[in-house]
Amino acid sequence: MTADATQDSPRASRRGYAKGRAKRQEILEVALRIFGEGGFSEASMSQIAEQCSLSRAGLHHYFPSKVSILFAVLEWRDSKDRDRFRANGSSHQDGLGVLRGMVDLAAHNATVPGLIGLYTRLAAEATAPDHPSHDYFVERYQRIRSETAWALSKVRTAGYLRDDVDIDDTAVTLNAMMDGLQVQWLLQPDAVDMAAQLRRAIQGLLTVPLYEE
Amino acid sequence: MTADATQDSPRASRRGYAKGRAKRQEILEVALRIFGEGGFSEASMSQIAEQCSLSRAGLHHYFPSKVSILFAVLEWRDSKDRDRFRANGSSHQDGLGVLRGMVDLAAHNATVPGLIGLYTRLAAEATAPDHPSHDYFVERYQRIRSETAWALSKVRTAGYLRDDVDIDDTAVTLNAMMDGLQVQWLLQPDAVDMAAQLRRAIQGLLTVPLYEE
Repeated sequence: MTADATQDSPRASRRGYAKGRAKRQEILEVALRIFGEGGFSEASMSQIAEQCSLSRAGLHHYFPSKVSILFAVLEWRDSKDRDRFRANGSSHQDGLGVLRGMVDLAAHNATVPGLIGLYTRLAAEATAPDHPSHDYFVERYQRIRSETAWALSKVRTAGYLRDDVDIDDTAVTLNAMMDGLQVQWLLQPDAVDMAAQLRRAIQGLLTVPLYEE
Repeated sequence: MTADATQDSPRASRRGYAKGRAKRQEILEVALRIFGEGGFSEASMSQIAEQCSLSRAGLHHYFPSKVSILFAVLEWRDSKDRDRFRANGSSHQDGLGVLRGMVDLAAHNATVPGLIGLYTRLAAEATAPDHPSHDYFVERYQRIRSETAWALSKVRTAGYLRDDVDIDDTAVTLNAMMDGLQVQWLLQPDAVDMAAQLRRAIQGLLTVPLYEE
């Protein structure tokens, strides 16, 4: 087929693209492990390059700086979390799927202590206005507060929210609770069951069961 | 009076003791400011010594290491917080004073962002098991959970706690909420009123007003 010749180049470039994507993903996974184990500040580009079998120049081809890797790691995590929320029915009309998504996320978080330790340290460091991730975290918390408030207002419209629950207040405090639970859980994993705590706190806001029996 | 001669030496040593205490306190205040501004990891003993008009050896006389200063800062803060709880009636039989103390502490915290930033970063860093403050923070959270549970059980005995409130759960989540509120407040002070949020969350647990009208 004559088409073969013209398709050859895109195919080769698709293969190259797929390979590049796989390498990029490998870098993110290696970086996540290194950041999680020793902290972001202590990690070096040379260390990441070495563990991905890349030269410094090779790593630079994918990511020009450690901060750019960090942002890609954070975006990757956010995108996986969005998948988790969708799998819990976050788009359903009654808003309960978002709340179930929060519990599911807390349960998942308990399986990735390295990532949660990294996130907790990073959010704390990023409270300093001159930290490279400061704006990312400001916007992240604005977004999650607003998404939580959106979900709670759906739950209210469906008639499932207790009358005395203030939506904007709860959008702040539920997310605050998740963060604070992470600190206590990282310090003493046996003492705190993040998902169970959050599930009971959310159930306490509702007039219907969060999960069908 | 013959006693004068024998009293002279204790008096001089009392003066020396008072001077030493004042200097120790000055070091803590300087260290707190330096840790709060640039972080604990970045701070150096030389920097602290210089800003207290001490030589390195002079500073070493009071504190052998940066970590020992950090512990003294944390103890100093804990002792001031205990005073605050007592002033709110934390020893009263009905337990409400402890809950009012938590709200008062959150209000006070909003006036010392440097200290709260330091505390938040330090608690996050200390989740790493090899961090010098790891055990301090594990024990601190054990203690505050147990003190909160003690207060809530007093509130229950007094008949002021809602029937559906679980004491052990709430001891975890109220303290988690305080920590998480600090992160959101440090990132965006206008978006979060820590004391008001906490006050409403605590009021929601009670069958009586937290504050007399």
